[in-house]
Amino acid sequence: MQQGRFCYSLKGVSVELNNDRSIMRPMNRGRPRTFDPDQVLENAMQLFWSQGYEATSLQDLLLATGLSKSSLYESFGNKQSLFEAAFTRYFDSRSQQMRERLQQAESPLGFIRGCLLSVLEDAQQQTPRGCMLVNVANEFSTGDPAVQPLIELATRRFRQVFEQAFTQAQACGELSTSQSPVALALFMHCAMSGLRTQAKSGIARNELLSVIDLVMTNLR
Amino acid sequence: MQQGRFCYSLKGVSVELNNDRSIMRPMNRGRPRTFDPDQVLENAMQLFWSQGYEATSLQDLLLATGLSKSSLYESFGNKQSLFEAAFTRYFDSRSQQMRERLQQAESPLGFIRGCLLSVLEDAQQQTPRGCMLVNVANEFSTGDPAVQPLIELATRRFRQVFEQAFTQAQACGELSTSQSPVALALFMHCAMSGLRTQAKSGIARNELLSVIDLVMTNLR
Repeated sequence: MQQGRFCYSLKGVSVELNNDRSIMRPMNRGRPRTFDPDQVLENAMQLFWSQGYEATSLQDLLLATGLSKSSLYESFGNKQSLFEAAFTRYFDSRSQQMRERLQQAESPLGFIRGCLLSVLEDAQQQTPRGCMLVNVANEFSTGDPAVQPLIELATRRFRQVFEQAFTQAQACGELSTSQSPVALALFMHCAMSGLRTQAKSGIARNELLSVIDLVMTNLR
Repeated sequence: MQQGRFCYSLKGVSVELNNDRSIMRPMNRGRPRTFDPDQVLENAMQLFWSQGYEATSLQDLLLATGLSKSSLYESFGNKQSLFEAAFTRYFDSRSQQMRERLQQAESPLGFIRGCLLSVLEDAQQQTPRGCMLVNVANEFSTGDPAVQPLIELATRRFRQVFEQAFTQAQACGELSTSQSPVALALFMHCAMSGLRTQAKSGIARNELLSVIDLVMTNLR
């Protein structure tokens, strides 16, 4: 835990609040309320990721973000628009991390295997929370006009990283060119989503590993 | 619409109520209330399948089932136990339908391809509702002590049908014996779950078809 921060647990989710006085909202009445929007979004994202949209109450959000009800409404509109901003933060940061990992990977297919294996880490948790994109797609489906474009954008971002990895794998001779990187990226997206759901279903680690081995065999 | 039944739409979900007087609850006060538990469970299942657990209110359930609050509590305990019964109805009936389809299929791999293609039908809906098992696993994860055993049981039921299909496909020479039917069934379960999530993400039909083709190529 960093200095100047404190943590608490909300329904089993660890939440970190910043108590640096320069960015906390002052207690004096009548003074403008200030907060760190980055930390607020991070806390809201962690909460929505763990609990989903419907199961997260306004009260949960106020407790996790440290905002008053009026500050939340003034700054983020409402629960759904805060959710949209939190989900955008999720796929922006996660796709950026993936691009960096691909750049640093020893080989493009090593990166792909690393993505598949990352599901095992989540599966070790008492309650795996999966990938927020998979959770959001399954909770909302295509029914919400504001969330649907975000699901499509998130999907595109992750698929682009997979496509780049398969293009590089074919360029360096690690992978045959019998399938297009676009088709392989679609298949990889399907495999990752399926594995995430299997981890959340409580499928055993050795069984998840057997699926990962089969996916890798099929890719090569 | 069958005679003696009427339909209405609740949040876009068509719900059918039985108005056969022999199984409706009488309006007379003091008389024992009767209802068709099978129809109640069917209506509850359709609703939970479309909306998920958290997004379904008690009021939605009363409207969909035609029960009074006290009848629901007397007969099913509470919202969660009604959900558990409805989910059990889902995987009991769906896995039975799959076994029947496998028996009637022209070939075991034809049955497997048919399962994958069934996702396309759902994807054509304005708001695909996916597979209830995938939805429940993603909403609950492994955190609920009553729902988790049901998720495991449902997973086992569906995987058993896939295993049986792959065993038959190997026995009739349609499929090589390089992979065990158990591993192939795990992979198929992963592919189906991933495809369901892709359909709910609004992925285009031709892209879903490309994933299905790749899965089938990999199986052979």
